Amino acid sequence: MANSENSLRLNNRHINALLKYLPIDREEDKSIDSKFPTITLTYAASLDSNISVAPRTTTKLSGSESKAMTHYLRAHHDAILVGATTAITDNPHLISRWVEVHNNVTRQPRPIIVDPSGRWLAGLVGTENLFRLVREERGKAPWVFVDSATVLEPEALVVLGSCGCECFYINNLKTEYGGICWIPVLVELANRGIRSLMVEGGATVLNDLLRKQNQHLLSIVIITIAPVYLGAAGVAVSPEKIANEREVLRLQDVSWIQMGEDVVMAGFP
Amino acid sequence: MANSENSLRLNNRHINALLKYLPIDREEDKSIDSKFPTITLTYAASLDSNISVAPRTTTKLSGSESKAMTHYLRAHHDAILVGATTAITDNPHLISRWVEVHNNVTRQPRPIIVDPSGRWLAGLVGTENLFRLVREERGKAPWVFVDSATVLEPEALVVLGSCGCECFYINNLKTEYGGICWIPVLVELANRGIRSLMVEGGATVLNDLLRKQNQHLLSIVIITIAPVYLGAAGVAVSPEKIANEREVLRLQDVSWIQMGEDVVMAGFP
Repeated sequence: MANSENSLRLNNRHINALLKYLPIDREEDKSIDSKFPTITLTYAASLDSNISVAPRTTTKLSGSESKAMTHYLRAHHDAILVGATTAITDNPHLISRWVEVHNNVTRQPRPIIVDPSGRWLAGLVGTENLFRLVREERGKAPWVFVDSATVLEPEALVVLGSCGCECFYINNLKTEYGGICWIPVLVELANRGIRSLMVEGGATVLNDLLRKQNQHLLSIVIITIAPVYLGAAGVAVSPEKIANEREVLRLQDVSWIQMGEDVVMAGFP
Repeated sequence: MANSENSLRLNNRHINALLKYLPIDREEDKSIDSKFPTITLTYAASLDSNISVAPRTTTKLSGSESKAMTHYLRAHHDAILVGATTAITDNPHLISRWVEVHNNVTRQPRPIIVDPSGRWLAGLVGTENLFRLVREERGKAPWVFVDSATVLEPEALVVLGSCGCECFYINNLKTEYGGICWIPVLVELANRGIRSLMVEGGATVLNDLLRKQNQHLLSIVIITIAPVYLGAAGVAVSPEKIANEREVLRLQDVSWIQMGEDVVMAGFP
């Protein structure tokens, strides 16, 4: 526990290699529609592109250096977004322990949970890490996006209210093809002052943003690859079927940065 | 065509980074059973661990620098092995165009095709690149491993004979679980003087060697990752279902070397 509370640092060589992939350096890029936050897609995967060894399990992948990199990135985004399954399975902290912002709640990113059917909300008890960190004034209160057709239990509303969490109701948040209707989410976030959004998982959310019709929303992709095979029963990051080679998503201006035994890849879609 | 005939070079920094992962430097490693050749597993994949966008298609993944690296590796192995599907789909050359060995047939690696059911052999016409290169004295005659229960067509035997190819008949080459029975193949190769074997694909062969029961046969893993997503209909490299986190294959003493837009990962199982 003590270890997980430490502030994290990154060496200057790694910081310099990452600089051009930070959203703060890209605000003048007018090619990105300023109605929406800049989105950085980020995750840690195995050589076989799995984020865990099986559904609904948490698998440790990153070493200490690439983990510090993730916290550095979090410190440079206004918000961090995860889907309901990740929120349920990982009981995540979604704070940055980067040395310059750790324990400084005003500089922490806003946690965002996309929970169309209210699965995460239905299981809340109030002792989750996210709520504990709010009470300890170390993390901001989460914002939750729910489909407006979802009926929430009173217990969930009590937990949310006790920590100042906000709930956003979006019409048809879940699309017909099982993905997320991102535009109203991004418009709402932009209206609330979020200029940069780091999307961390899980596979459903990542794969949905990597779909052909959503790729244009992405500004930056930064992934960690650990030198491990998790096997064919793992939870894979891979966008839906691609019809032919001309349709594949190839990243541009790519840097590969070895951090410990892992590599961090940064590039632009 | 002219381009594909050029000799390939690699810069000294990349060569130095790869040196410790070459089998020639590891001959004194007595931990590896000297009955068998040293096996290097190598392939190029996308970020989502696919080697092609769909079954039975060839997808260009590597850039020129990582491609040169593959030819450098080929020049440092006695033999290159691929499975039947790769031999059928890719019509491969399986020679090294590394500048120091290109067009020097005595220093070329031996092409090995593992074709248990004779699928590749059944379609041979004699104009395949492998046979053309033998006739042009630029590549060695392939060796083919077939299950001893497989009956070959006379046409296949004529093609093989015309180029001095050898056919090895192995009892139960195909295992009950659909994999390859590697031990008799490796014993045969060792008996014929092959001390180092580079296994290049396809996914069936790679995934079979990454299985828990075969991993001990591997000495080195060197993979190229291109910054592209090929999608969920692609042909994935990922070993069979892994029961839990303790069973995953984690590589040791890993180097990640950026070559152009790709990265090359080298490590030891």
